[in-house]
Amino acid sequence: MTPEEFREAGHQLIDWIADSRASVHEKPVLAQVQPGDIRARFEADPPSSTSSFEALLAELDSSVVPGVTQVQNPMHFGWFPSNATLSSVLGDIASSGIASLGISWESSPALTEVEEVMCDWMRQLTGLSDTWSGSIHDTASTGCLVAMLVARERATGLSQNSGGLQGVAEPLVVYTSPQAHSSVAKAALLAGFGWDNIQMVDVDPVSFAMNPDKLAELMAQDVAAGKVPACVVAAVGTTGTTAMDPVADIVEVASKHDVFVHVDAAMAGTAMLLPECRHLWDGVEGADSISWNPHKWMGTILDCSLLYVRDVDLLQRIMATNPSYLQSPSGDEATQYRDWGIPLGRRFRSLKLLFQLRLDGVEAIQARLRRDLANAKWFEDQVQNADGWKVCAPVDLQTVCVRYYPDGMTEGPELDTFTQAWAQAINASGAAFLSSSTLPDGWMVRVSVGVEVTERHHLEQLWKLMQEAVHQTP
Amino acid sequence: MTPEEFREAGHQLIDWIADSRASVHEKPVLAQVQPGDIRARFEADPPSSTSSFEALLAELDSSVVPGVTQVQNPMHFGWFPSNATLSSVLGDIASSGIASLGISWESSPALTEVEEVMCDWMRQLTGLSDTWSGSIHDTASTGCLVAMLVARERATGLSQNSGGLQGVAEPLVVYTSPQAHSSVAKAALLAGFGWDNIQMVDVDPVSFAMNPDKLAELMAQDVAAGKVPACVVAAVGTTGTTAMDPVADIVEVASKHDVFVHVDAAMAGTAMLLPECRHLWDGVEGADSISWNPHKWMGTILDCSLLYVRDVDLLQRIMATNPSYLQSPSGDEATQYRDWGIPLGRRFRSLKLLFQLRLDGVEAIQARLRRDLANAKWFEDQVQNADGWKVCAPVDLQTVCVRYYPDGMTEGPELDTFTQAWAQAINASGAAFLSSSTLPDGWMVRVSVGVEVTERHHLEQLWKLMQEAVHQTP
Repeated sequence: MTPEEFREAGHQLIDWIADSRASVHEKPVLAQVQPGDIRARFEADPPSSTSSFEALLAELDSSVVPGVTQVQNPMHFGWFPSNATLSSVLGDIASSGIASLGISWESSPALTEVEEVMCDWMRQLTGLSDTWSGSIHDTASTGCLVAMLVARERATGLSQNSGGLQGVAEPLVVYTSPQAHSSVAKAALLAGFGWDNIQMVDVDPVSFAMNPDKLAELMAQDVAAGKVPACVVAAVGTTGTTAMDPVADIVEVASKHDVFVHVDAAMAGTAMLLPECRHLWDGVEGADSISWNPHKWMGTILDCSLLYVRDVDLLQRIMATNPSYLQSPSGDEATQYRDWGIPLGRRFRSLKLLFQLRLDGVEAIQARLRRDLANAKWFEDQVQNADGWKVCAPVDLQTVCVRYYPDGMTEGPELDTFTQAWAQAINASGAAFLSSSTLPDGWMVRVSVGVEVTERHHLEQLWKLMQEAVHQTP
Repeated sequence: MTPEEFREAGHQLIDWIADSRASVHEKPVLAQVQPGDIRARFEADPPSSTSSFEALLAELDSSVVPGVTQVQNPMHFGWFPSNATLSSVLGDIASSGIASLGISWESSPALTEVEEVMCDWMRQLTGLSDTWSGSIHDTASTGCLVAMLVARERATGLSQNSGGLQGVAEPLVVYTSPQAHSSVAKAALLAGFGWDNIQMVDVDPVSFAMNPDKLAELMAQDVAAGKVPACVVAAVGTTGTTAMDPVADIVEVASKHDVFVHVDAAMAGTAMLLPECRHLWDGVEGADSISWNPHKWMGTILDCSLLYVRDVDLLQRIMATNPSYLQSPSGDEATQYRDWGIPLGRRFRSLKLLFQLRLDGVEAIQARLRRDLANAKWFEDQVQNADGWKVCAPVDLQTVCVRYYPDGMTEGPELDTFTQAWAQAINASGAAFLSSSTLPDGWMVRVSVGVEVTERHHLEQLWKLMQEAVHQTP
C-alpha cells in the first residue's frame, strides 16, 4: 500500500471511527452473539484474493462490530471503566504512524525519552516523590510479575546468577489477600513460588481490606517455621469492591522482615490524580514498587500500565541483557527500557499519555473523576435508602457493590442464583452491563461508574432498570 | 474530545502520517541525537494548560521525529526488518478506534474470535498442521518465557500447584546455543532455572547452528548427574547470522528424555510463507511450541508475535485464572485468551493481520519476500567477489554477515576495532544503518535486507557506501 492509498483509506477510517464513537450509545453494551458466531463469519481458509478498502470497512461493520462489547457506551458499568479518550486514541494512531522499533535507545531515542518524561509527569501528577523510576508495561498483571521476580531475586541475593529458585534452601513466601486481583496469585505461580507458599491474609469483614495484624502473625509463623517472607502485594483498590489495603501498616510489618512490598493500584492509581484521594494509599512511599493503569478510569487507551520501582539498579540487574547485536555507542548514558521488563521490543505507548495530557489537560481529567465520585455517592444513597437493597462494601472510589433481598430471602445459594439472574437479565438485554463478583457471604453486583460519557441521567436510568429487573426476576 | 473534534484532528493526523511515510527516505536512518536531547525538549513539570492539535503536531515534528530512527527508510539494514506495512497500520488504527477491552470472551467476542481465525490462517499459510493452537503476544521474548514456564511445569508435574520450583528436588536444565537470542537465557532466568542450569550447546563452526550430537552428550551427562533436562530452545534463524538449528535432530534427541522443545523462529517464521523455505524448519511438527514475529519481515506493525502450542490444555492449566468477577454465562464454549499467556488484558491485535491479508494479500507479501531473498544473494555475490571482503556466515535467509580485512590485518582486537569503526561511520552519517555483532572469531557487520521499500538500487548504494567507508576508516 502506498502512502497515497493509505491517505485515502485513512480518511475513510477516521470518519468510520468518529461515526462509531458518536453512535456508541445506540449499540447494545454486551455483544449480542454466542461463542462461534463471529468466527463463522470468516472463511476457514486464508483468502487468496485481496479486498478493496470499502469492502473491508463493510466487513468490519458486518462481521466485527456485532461482536464488540461496547465498553465506551455510557451504560457500561461492568468490570472497571476501560476508557479510551479520543485524545489518547489520536496518540495511539500517531504511534502506529511513526512505527518505531523500541528495542534499544538507539533504535528510537524519542520512544525512550518521551516515555521517561511521561512517566515522570505522571509521577508528579500522582504526588509521588522523585525517588521513583517509571516505565510503561502492557498490563498490571505483567507489572506484578516483574515486581514479584524482583522480590524473589532480592530475597535470594540474585539466585538467578547461580542455581536459580531451585538452588534456594528455605522456601520463599508471598503474601496477599483473597480480595487481591487474580493476577497476583498468577504472578506468584509463574515466578515459581508455588501455591503452598502463597499466604492469603485475612481481610477485615466490613472493609474487605487486608488485616495487617494477621499479616504480622503469618510472617512470624513462617519465619519460625524456617521460611523466608519475600513479598507482600497490597491492593489499593481491590477488583471486587475497591477495598484499600492499609499500605502504611503493611509497609511497617514488611520492614521488620525486609520483605519487598508491591502496591497494586491498577484501578485506584487514577484517583491519585486528585490530591483529596491520596490518603487512600498513605504509606506508599515506603513500598518498593507500584503499578497502576492509566488505561482504566483515567482513559488512556489500552494498553498503558505504569510500573514504578524504587531500586531501578536492582530491576536492571535482573532484567538486563546486553548481546553484541544490541550494543551501541550511546552506552551507559541512555536508558535501555528492554532492561526494565520482560519483552525486548516495545511500542511508542507514551504518545498516548502525551496526547491526552496536551489535548484534554489534567484539569479536565480531574473534573471528570470528581464527577464520577459524586455520581457513585449519589448511587450509593439511592441504594441505601431503597427497601430490600443493600450496599455491600464501603464506596471508597467509584464502584458500588449491591445486593437485593427479595422478601424472606437471606444469604445463601438461593440468593446467589437470584443475584446473578437479575444482573444477567440486564446484561443480556444490551441496555446496560454490570458484572457480578463474590464476597465471603455470597454473590453481589458491581456498579462500576466512570465511563467517560456516563452522566447522572445514565445512572438514574440504570437504577430504574435494576429496580425493574429484581422485580421481574423469578 | 468529542467525535467531531476527533474527526477534524484525525484527518490532519492521517495526512501527517502519509506525508511522513512518503518522505521517509529523506530523513537520516539513525536519529541524529545524543542521550538526553529529546528529553530536554519537554518541560520538566507536567503541563497545566492544554495545546491545540496543530501545536501538538508541530511538537511531534520538532521534538519527537528528530529522535526517531527511521526503520522504514529503505537504507535501514540494521537488526532485523521492522516493517510496518500501511495496510497493517490501518488495522492498528481500526483497533484503536474500536477500543475493545480484551479481558474475556464476553468483554469482546470479536477480539477473541478474529484472533482465533487469524492465528489459524497464519498457521495454514506457514504450512503447519492443524494440531497447533495459536495466540498473539507482544514479542517473541514473552512467547519464549511462556514456553519455558510450560516446559518447567510439564517437567515437574505442575509443581506450581504445590511447592513450586522451590519444592523440586532435582535441578531442571535448559538447553540452547550461544547464538540463540538473548531473550532465551533471560526467559530461563526469569522462570527460575538459574544460570548454573542453562547449558549452552556448541554450534557448528561454519553454519553456527546447534550441534545435536553435543546436545545429546550434554543431556546424557546431566541425567547421569541427577539433573532433569526440561527444555530445549531451537533457534530457526539466530539473530546474529540467521543460523538454522536442526529442528528434526533436536526433536529426536529431546524425545529420548521427554524434553519440551520450543522453536524460536522470531525472524525466520516469515520465510515459511514461502513453501520453498519450509525445509529450514524440517521437523517442526515434532516440537511443542513455536513463536515467530509477523512484526518483523512480514510487515505487520509491531507488536504482533505468534505463539503456537501443541498442548493447549496444559498451557491453560498453567496460565488459567477464573475469578468470580470474570466469570460469564458463555462458560467453556468460549476461548479465554487470558489463560493463554501472562497479561490479563489484550488489544485487538489480530486486526493488523486481517487488514494486511485482505488489503495486500498473501501473493504480494510472498513476492516481496522473494525479492529480498534474491537481493541478499546478489549482495552476497558482490561481497564474495571483492578483494579484502568476506562473507562470514551462510546466507540462509536475507541477512548477509560481512567483514573487511585491511592489508595485513587478521582476526583480533585491531580488526574488531576497525570493523566497528567503519560500521559506526556509516551509521553516524545517517545515510544507512547496519548493526554489528560477534562471532566466535570476532566482530562482523550484518546487512539485514528486507525493508518493505528497499530495492536493488538501495543495495547498490549501500555497497558503494561500505567500500568507501572501509577505505576512509583509519
